[in-house]
Amino acid sequence: MAKAEKFSVVGQRVQRVDGFDKVTGESKYIADIILPGMLLGKILRSPYPHARILRIDTSKAEHLRGVRAVVTAEDTLKRPWGAFFADQYILSVGKARYVGEEVAAVAAVDLDVAEEALALIDVEWEPLPAVFDAEEAMKAGAPLVHDDKKRNIAVTLDIERGNIQRAFAESDIIVEDTFQSAPQWHCSIETIGSVAEYASSGKYTIYMNSQTLFNARYRIAAALGVPETDIRIIQSAVGGGFGGKSCDDNNALVAAILARKAGKPVKVINSREEEFLAGCRPRVFMKIDVKLGFKKDGRIRAKHIRIIADNGAYSAKAPAITGVAAMRHDTCYKYSDVKTQAYLVYTNKIPTGAFRGFGNPSAEWAVEQAIDIGAHELGIDPMEIARINAAESGYVSPHGNRVTSCELKQCLDMTEKMMDWKKKRADKKPNTGLGLACTVHVSGKRHFGDYDGSSATIKINEDGKALILSGEGEIGQGVHTAMCQIAAEELGVRVEDVEISKADTDLTTFCLGAFASRLTYISGNAVKNAASNVKQQLFQQASEMLEANADDLISHGGRIFVKGAEGKFVTVADAARARLFRHNGAPIVGSGSFDADSVLPDKTRFGNESGAYNYGVQAAQVEVDRETGQVKVLQYVIASDCGTVIYPIGAEGQVEGGFAQGIGYALIEGLQFDEGRPVNPNFSDYRIPSMRDLPPLTHAFADSYEPTGPFGAKGLGELNMDPTAAVISNAIFDAVGVRIKTLPITPEKVLKALTEKG
Amino acid sequence: MAKAEKFSVVGQRVQRVDGFDKVTGESKYIADIILPGMLLGKILRSPYPHARILRIDTSKAEHLRGVRAVVTAEDTLKRPWGAFFADQYILSVGKARYVGEEVAAVAAVDLDVAEEALALIDVEWEPLPAVFDAEEAMKAGAPLVHDDKKRNIAVTLDIERGNIQRAFAESDIIVEDTFQSAPQWHCSIETIGSVAEYASSGKYTIYMNSQTLFNARYRIAAALGVPETDIRIIQSAVGGGFGGKSCDDNNALVAAILARKAGKPVKVINSREEEFLAGCRPRVFMKIDVKLGFKKDGRIRAKHIRIIADNGAYSAKAPAITGVAAMRHDTCYKYSDVKTQAYLVYTNKIPTGAFRGFGNPSAEWAVEQAIDIGAHELGIDPMEIARINAAESGYVSPHGNRVTSCELKQCLDMTEKMMDWKKKRADKKPNTGLGLACTVHVSGKRHFGDYDGSSATIKINEDGKALILSGEGEIGQGVHTAMCQIAAEELGVRVEDVEISKADTDLTTFCLGAFASRLTYISGNAVKNAASNVKQQLFQQASEMLEANADDLISHGGRIFVKGAEGKFVTVADAARARLFRHNGAPIVGSGSFDADSVLPDKTRFGNESGAYNYGVQAAQVEVDRETGQVKVLQYVIASDCGTVIYPIGAEGQVEGGFAQGIGYALIEGLQFDEGRPVNPNFSDYRIPSMRDLPPLTHAFADSYEPTGPFGAKGLGELNMDPTAAVISNAIFDAVGVRIKTLPITPEKVLKALTEKG
Repeated sequence: MAKAEKFSVVGQRVQRVDGFDKVTGESKYIADIILPGMLLGKILRSPYPHARILRIDTSKAEHLRGVRAVVTAEDTLKRPWGAFFADQYILSVGKARYVGEEVAAVAAVDLDVAEEALALIDVEWEPLPAVFDAEEAMKAGAPLVHDDKKRNIAVTLDIERGNIQRAFAESDIIVEDTFQSAPQWHCSIETIGSVAEYASSGKYTIYMNSQTLFNARYRIAAALGVPETDIRIIQSAVGGGFGGKSCDDNNALVAAILARKAGKPVKVINSREEEFLAGCRPRVFMKIDVKLGFKKDGRIRAKHIRIIADNGAYSAKAPAITGVAAMRHDTCYKYSDVKTQAYLVYTNKIPTGAFRGFGNPSAEWAVEQAIDIGAHELGIDPMEIARINAAESGYVSPHGNRVTSCELKQCLDMTEKMMDWKKKRADKKPNTGLGLACTVHVSGKRHFGDYDGSSATIKINEDGKALILSGEGEIGQGVHTAMCQIAAEELGVRVEDVEISKADTDLTTFCLGAFASRLTYISGNAVKNAASNVKQQLFQQASEMLEANADDLISHGGRIFVKGAEGKFVTVADAARARLFRHNGAPIVGSGSFDADSVLPDKTRFGNESGAYNYGVQAAQVEVDRETGQVKVLQYVIASDCGTVIYPIGAEGQVEGGFAQGIGYALIEGLQFDEGRPVNPNFSDYRIPSMRDLPPLTHAFADSYEPTGPFGAKGLGELNMDPTAAVISNAIFDAVGVRIKTLPITPEKVLKALTEKG
Repeated sequence: MAKAEKFSVVGQRVQRVDGFDKVTGESKYIADIILPGMLLGKILRSPYPHARILRIDTSKAEHLRGVRAVVTAEDTLKRPWGAFFADQYILSVGKARYVGEEVAAVAAVDLDVAEEALALIDVEWEPLPAVFDAEEAMKAGAPLVHDDKKRNIAVTLDIERGNIQRAFAESDIIVEDTFQSAPQWHCSIETIGSVAEYASSGKYTIYMNSQTLFNARYRIAAALGVPETDIRIIQSAVGGGFGGKSCDDNNALVAAILARKAGKPVKVINSREEEFLAGCRPRVFMKIDVKLGFKKDGRIRAKHIRIIADNGAYSAKAPAITGVAAMRHDTCYKYSDVKTQAYLVYTNKIPTGAFRGFGNPSAEWAVEQAIDIGAHELGIDPMEIARINAAESGYVSPHGNRVTSCELKQCLDMTEKMMDWKKKRADKKPNTGLGLACTVHVSGKRHFGDYDGSSATIKINEDGKALILSGEGEIGQGVHTAMCQIAAEELGVRVEDVEISKADTDLTTFCLGAFASRLTYISGNAVKNAASNVKQQLFQQASEMLEANADDLISHGGRIFVKGAEGKFVTVADAARARLFRHNGAPIVGSGSFDADSVLPDKTRFGNESGAYNYGVQAAQVEVDRETGQVKVLQYVIASDCGTVIYPIGAEGQVEGGFAQGIGYALIEGLQFDEGRPVNPNFSDYRIPSMRDLPPLTHAFADSYEPTGPFGAKGLGELNMDPTAAVISNAIFDAVGVRIKTLPITPEKVLKALTEKG
């Protein structure tokens, strides 16, 4: 089916539904949430990467004028919590395991008093030997991050599909190399923050800039030891999420216990430094060994990957991320025999976690370079290697991923054309080169409780306007606009006539939230189903009014009419009012739900993890300055297959934003540690790309239709962050023949490699 | 069917669901709603009962430091709005029609500045001749309250059922008299208030202590000329409604236009004086001629009632109230031939409107006295007269009201017994007497757009707890507790495991709100239907888990099991989680709706206006001090037929509260006017009963079951206000032989009557 053309609202460059609020400054970010009597909270953090707490004396702080509550682990259940493993505490119990860990907190009438009170909390520390490197931490005798665990390895994966030994034996050439990825922070313009309120009935109401409200509810309930219903999460406007606002941290929990103790609402917002030290969980840094076997014709015959991943002191989502790094890319190309080994290891550093791309950017950084090495060794155009191996619709990966739509080859064609690849390769200039990489991502992922679904309720007001009630929050990506477009398309109304509620766990039904590029696909389907239910009710009423069969009706632009007879119509408002104001009247309201037709991976991690897979290709032309090592990206092209594009302006924003973070990951970003202590936790020293750092970008969406998607749509958000680092590295190799294998690709590293090469 | 016994939750003395918030002071009344940047608004009111506005100069006020907005009619559409007739303006257009009418308003940083600014608004008035008495206003040549209308009569009713002339001809005795009711104010402990916020997208969010949110939304949208969706009404906690908080006044509209102009949230709360002058619309005062024809055996053969009702300057709900006064009581007794005439007349006084009982307390004040006169003339015990004429289940009134359950005779028996009526009559002491009156009320009333329904959505959280989303607001009467009990009963869970949302027009579906004693019956049925939908989903899931047929399951105390096999069960939480966390998972959520099986009255006002009718009997023993005219109520008994009692503590509160307002109406209350100017608009001079004024009360509920009600329930809230004044007057007549025909029955009036009698 052809994209967008047949739709009235889907695919249109509509106005963003939260645009007015954004441009007028009326959006209420967490800083704007001000409740009567609200106090401000600050957190005392561990100055040590690993240290026992011998004693905490809070009495001086408690007596400071203006202080309303001081909390330590004594105010908690001292019970660990966590996304996958319960190993993290609200406030340090017994010892602290990384620099920045939450030890105590204060709520006071203003921030100055709160900070003064923090200084008055007396903690007697006993520093302990610490371990900062994952490989070191794996060794016998390394200091144990968690005393109750026998070793520092949190997760071990060892999976073989097919016969890897035979496959390498049958390979014509073998490529083997090691690549290292870097810590990367989300650097959302808004840091993590919460405002918590406690009612004496036992209910906590927490305003959060979370991207996963129901997961936050579940985790907070578990950590506080109360039923889910006692936690109400209301999403404030979110100034960027990128995986970092998934409630893997303690911010909201600290606000909650402060609020309970103070008997007043408490706001806790991370400073920028706190955000780096212990806020959003940065990208898992990995050391990745890749071994690939190729046939002479370019077919990949065997793949072996071995990953050592740094968990930091506590497990947030790193267990899942490690699995993704180890396996996801096997859905990009037609693999038969693969082996994957991975170790997730505790260290005395900030817990790592979810960041746009999950494990993909690390894995693709390694694998897409290994493929490029193979292409060069075989003397095959990297574009051709990709084409030869590219997945197609119908492909089933060695791990059971079932591809229902795939336009990877189309994306390769588009990239080739947009980059003028053949001509540029033919006319290669000195010190310039071309690089390419392919990528795959999911549209949702089945791992929370055998569910990868969403739900929504839609009601029609008496003026014919629709309101979507959904717990899927907007985090800046524009998904609320896409959801309104999907509802409008299904209902046959204008997008201006569809509103969407704030996400609020009390008032909406269960939704998993924003991760795994799932929302347009999953919540889009839920909204479409709810709208379809509502449309049925509208058509039933309209059929009486138009004296026609409901099956013969269609709706368009807010009017309902018999197909082919647009002249005689009732409006959606007419039908809604007529359904309500009559004998046996009722408002029009319908709920809809969707759960992806995916499979919870089994013990060997086999199973179709997602309902749909999105694909992309990126290519760069770079020029390397041999004097300075400086890499200049001359041109960048991206082709994305996300099925039908629902909200083009938002989708383009996703491509551009993902690409910018990819460039940062490739060339600029990386937190530096000194004995576990971050040395550049601020925007002066931790640089992210600005507009000046971004090369010209040419982008296009493939003509694609995902049969299980809402109007053919699938995911997109993370896709364009994933392969960028490999693209740049491949292009540098093409330009000057050196290959950088550790991120970021700094001029120093390039210069050093050039010098070594001589 | 017997009452309550068979239920687990219904009929239990459960803890009020909003009890914690109430007793801890955490309930957020309108005074507690504080938004960032919020301004305070004050209103300039007309000092004249009728005056043309020649000029308004707001420039001085606008320039006062701290003033953020000044509004006049120029900031409105100058288009009238209203509940039934559009005849009222947000701010005076051209002229003011009563003392207290809103003329202009100011939003400022504090109330002092706002009040100072009001004083700086320069209005040039031209006082006009005014009319204050409804009978005067009916006369030709009376000053016209509305220039665009030919006369001051807003509504004329003239209805005859049967043949009234023949019926009187066939009567053995005829009683004819005139009774006058008095203005009575609601005197809610919290005055009307609103906080309005305007977003540049065009949307108004209004926190209101309204009892009818969706009606408020409709009216505010109409008055502001925007679609309903552009108005969001969120109910704050409500400190008493009694009909006075039905958005018949301009408070929220003034707040809305101030907020729009100031670009900031604005709070406007009536002072107590403003509440009397122009806030809640007081009870319609009426002059009522009653003519009754009796057969010798006590049967009422004919009834003719003629009402002149004071509309005040604008029509709020008085058009409907006048109809109720003219006709409702005809459902109390078995009437055949009735004639009713009524005139609703504009005067230059505060608009009158909805107050507990609607038109009933005025009508019963008159008719129940006329019946008592007949009883005395015929020498029949008033208890017997009532028994002879009492309606029964199956009765259809002359106006088409169809009575599906009626325990009026049971209530008479109960009253007789509780009062020890026969013995007290036999042992009559000097200056003491017994009085009795019967009453009927509706459980909902079909008049807003041929709809008398409600709707609710219920979802089940993963912890098995249920949340009801409903737009029916709690106004202190305890209906939210009753709704939770109904949901709990239907779902088979504990009432503690059911929560109910705040009423919010954005987040809930259409609900008419709290009036006409409708909520327990109508919203109870809607909640029951939603719960039944949810239970079906739970049972479907549980049937898989228990390997049983869903039809064989029952639930109790949060467990679902096969009938007769309680040992093997799944909990509601188990089922909810299992339904969600599985392939094709979905949250459990269901919507339910109910619309009473009533009929929108036709042009002759014929039709079954309500789904169910509730009945009651009240009796008093009084002692009259012949020296002072003081009336002492020695004992008071009430028997109520409200079907199944869902929430006994709340129901008892309704009886006691209604009775207290009835005593106030009978003996104490009444606003005094001097040339249209209220002279006692405050609690020093307008007295309401305190605990000291209330006689001992004995009360009981009839054993009753309404077949169309949720678990057999019907309405109650207004019933016990309705007949009290007549009961007292009848008892006084029995005690000392004088009959007071104007309200309130002050000692002065009694003394004067005694003196005249000699």
